[in-house]
Amino acid sequence: MSASITPPVPVRHYLQFKDFSAEEYAYLFARAWLIKRKFKTYQKHHTLTDRTLAMIFEKASTRTRVSFEAGMYQLGGSVVHLTTGDSQLGRAEPIEDSARVISRMTDIVMIRTFGQEKIERFAAHSRVPVINGLTNEFHPCQILADLFTWLEYRGQRPDGTLDVDALKGITVAWVGDGNNMANTWLQAAQILGFRVHISTPRGYEVDPAVAGVPRGDFWQVFDNPMQACRGADLVTTDVWTSMGFEAENEARQKAFAAWCVTPEMMAVAKPEALFMHCLPAHRGEEVAAEVIDGPQSVVWDEAENRMHVQKALMEYLLLGQL
Amino acid sequence: MSASITPPVPVRHYLQFKDFSAEEYAYLFARAWLIKRKFKTYQKHHTLTDRTLAMIFEKASTRTRVSFEAGMYQLGGSVVHLTTGDSQLGRAEPIEDSARVISRMTDIVMIRTFGQEKIERFAAHSRVPVINGLTNEFHPCQILADLFTWLEYRGQRPDGTLDVDALKGITVAWVGDGNNMANTWLQAAQILGFRVHISTPRGYEVDPAVAGVPRGDFWQVFDNPMQACRGADLVTTDVWTSMGFEAENEARQKAFAAWCVTPEMMAVAKPEALFMHCLPAHRGEEVAAEVIDGPQSVVWDEAENRMHVQKALMEYLLLGQL
Amino acid sequence: MSASITPPVPVRHYLQFKDFSAEEYAYLFARAWLIKRKFKTYQKHHTLTDRTLAMIFEKASTRTRVSFEAGMYQLGGSVVHLTTGDSQLGRAEPIEDSARVISRMTDIVMIRTFGQEKIERFAAHSRVPVINGLTNEFHPCQILADLFTWLEYRGQRPDGTLDVDALKGITVAWVGDGNNMANTWLQAAQILGFRVHISTPRGYEVDPAVAGVPRGDFWQVFDNPMQACRGADLVTTDVWTSMGFEAENEARQKAFAAWCVTPEMMAVAKPEALFMHCLPAHRGEEVAAEVIDGPQSVVWDEAENRMHVQKALMEYLLLGQL
Repeated sequence: MSASITPPVPVRHYLQFKDFSAEEYAYLFARAWLIKRKFKTYQKHHTLTDRTLAMIFEKASTRTRVSFEAGMYQLGGSVVHLTTGDSQLGRAEPIEDSARVISRMTDIVMIRTFGQEKIERFAAHSRVPVINGLTNEFHPCQILADLFTWLEYRGQRPDGTLDVDALKGITVAWVGDGNNMANTWLQAAQILGFRVHISTPRGYEVDPAVAGVPRGDFWQVFDNPMQACRGADLVTTDVWTSMGFEAENEARQKAFAAWCVTPEMMAVAKPEALFMHCLPAHRGEEVAAEVIDGPQSVVWDEAENRMHVQKALMEYLLLGQL
Repeated sequence: MSASITPPVPVRHYLQFKDFSAEEYAYLFARAWLIKRKFKTYQKHHTLTDRTLAMIFEKASTRTRVSFEAGMYQLGGSVVHLTTGDSQLGRAEPIEDSARVISRMTDIVMIRTFGQEKIERFAAHSRVPVINGLTNEFHPCQILADLFTWLEYRGQRPDGTLDVDALKGITVAWVGDGNNMANTWLQAAQILGFRVHISTPRGYEVDPAVAGVPRGDFWQVFDNPMQACRGADLVTTDVWTSMGFEAENEARQKAFAAWCVTPEMMAVAKPEALFMHCLPAHRGEEVAAEVIDGPQSVVWDEAENRMHVQKALMEYLLLGQL
Repeated sequence: MSASITPPVPVRHYLQFKDFSAEEYAYLFARAWLIKRKFKTYQKHHTLTDRTLAMIFEKASTRTRVSFEAGMYQLGGSVVHLTTGDSQLGRAEPIEDSARVISRMTDIVMIRTFGQEKIERFAAHSRVPVINGLTNEFHPCQILADLFTWLEYRGQRPDGTLDVDALKGITVAWVGDGNNMANTWLQAAQILGFRVHISTPRGYEVDPAVAGVPRGDFWQVFDNPMQACRGADLVTTDVWTSMGFEAENEARQKAFAAWCVTPEMMAVAKPEALFMHCLPAHRGEEVAAEVIDGPQSVVWDEAENRMHVQKALMEYLLLGQL
């Protein structure tokens, strides 16, 4: 006799990169490509009319905020933007209760929070799909955008469409913190068949248990960042001090001094290698100005592509393959 | 020669429950029922295209925020969400001036504030309808949702529509603070013909002058919450310390200790009694986990129904009966 | 091989009043008049479907916020509202990077900030039009609304349309701070052919180098505010202490004591003179209650007209003359 919504199909979430299969990623890249092209030519693409996205931010954001919000509007949907202010998710009421209530009133939820377990608990009690918009452990939407950007530059077929197989066997060099981005690159490599060279300062290594990947041939650790870049198809890094770790800033400035992506590092990568950075960037710290502002850098396309891939992602979670 | 909007008809506001008649509530429940059914079956219901809702929050909110905002989008309208930050309404400029300006640019206004007199002053100078989204004195939108939820569970006709007369003569037990919710239950009881049993700790009684209701047969005060629940059709409560009363928290924790809705209280209510709570809930304080998470609890439907009844309310204030 | 948007035409910005010509203003006033009339008669005017406005606020706002946001929705577009919180634009990342990213994801940007140089730097790296929503130096959108309001009251042709030439030769009296509003009035006077009488306390004079106007016949300085008002067609003022200058509040209260627009000042202006104020107003400080609440005051129309002229402005920047 309940008058409530019964979700018609099992709900899918996107909490870490390995929540989707290689086949699903092939679909998502193709769909994002279509969506981007329609957007560029001002063709209406309102597949989510009357659907509402709830965005919950426990950490500040510009890129994630704008890309999800503008993207949802372009799909014909709407957005409710919630910040947790001083209090954190789970303080005023149990996370489970917030999940139950918010998922009764909206159609899809994006959460940017601290611990991954928070988003997992939210998702477990949500009737609607939940997307990880960044946690301390993972940042799957960013890697989705990064891979799409790489395919746009290096994996186009003659007809302009993207060939996801072009990712097979390439080498991605990660220079810097063994953080949520590094963890997510590892998950992506395992699923999509590429290799990751990781070089972090001591004490900031990737923890495979956290990353959720086995040790294996597909990733290799280097003490020297220059060696990690050798022969790479893509060199990428992130700020030395991610949000939530500001207290460690001084120690990190010292520890990371040699983990700055320099022109010398780019010179040992493949000549056609690209440079990516999820932004914001600190020139002179984790990347030299000549690199991020140079011809191999695709950071602005990378930022823009967040919007296009996330549109494909939201559409897929709500409507499945179209 | 003024170029300004002249409101075509006298503006109606919804500042307390008794602003509407029983007949108007019958319409609203029927309309909300229709709106909810259309929503569940993904039928477009854009009756407020190009209309803008201004939401003004002086107190934090999740439920009120999401339910009004998502609801307005589903009606085809748009929302401007204003928070007063550190300053309060009436600090940067007189409330009257804010009302004059905001009501020139938007079509309907929802306000969550402290004193009822603030919202009354705003409404007196507004050209557009003003809705009480919670004040220290009243919370009419919540009671609207609660009554709708009760009707969904206990007042459906054979064809599924709601019979507002099913409310006549039922008994609602209010256990806890003599606050804005209690006041509003009393106004509703007088208009819709049901009875309220109220049990509050000493010092937290309902003040009929504030509630705006006469003493009378339709409400009865009990020292013992168990007695208030006896034979009730609906048992409901609220947090011990509402927003704005945090300074009294310690004293309230002591005073309210016996005003926790327990399985024992539910056991003396009618077997088919429902439990409601406007949320957020503190399990182990005002309600036992077994109650709020038990089979008689309809709190998640109650939360969701905020959205449906408020859609009907906004539509009615702007367009009248359709 | 870049996959990025190439702006099809050179991007126009609106950073100060003199960014547009007299001819362009004639178009804008005519267009705003049409847009306002369609709005009043509930005619859909969705010229910016699927376009997104990013609003960046470094200073609090109600009028600017609501007028731009509601206006964009009425044009069929959407809005992303960004506040900088404690950190300022350019703190987390260089302003240039923010401009590059935000202008990749949105179609037009409105910024309310402190120094004009910030908005100039943002615009220099933006692919999309940037609008000045108030800086320490200029407030062009407000003057656009003020002039439109004056034309509505004093410049209508027999058929109701606006005659921009009615502005030629009129006298505007500015009483008070030599601030962003005063600067912008001077730019407008030079372009549209009217005169400005300015009276400020000593130490608060307009600086022509900041205002970006030559000394000339079109503006004249008066020590005595009463003399500035003599024969004026429009008397206007602003708060004594604008946002960002709160530390000077006490000194300003003393210095500005004689710069209150009184009924006596209005009495020496033309009998048909109007009074304007960009709000919020402090009655008894910069303006007497009898003036702002009196028959010559058009401040509420002025506030509402922000929305209509800004709709015309956004449409023009994105679509050109229609």
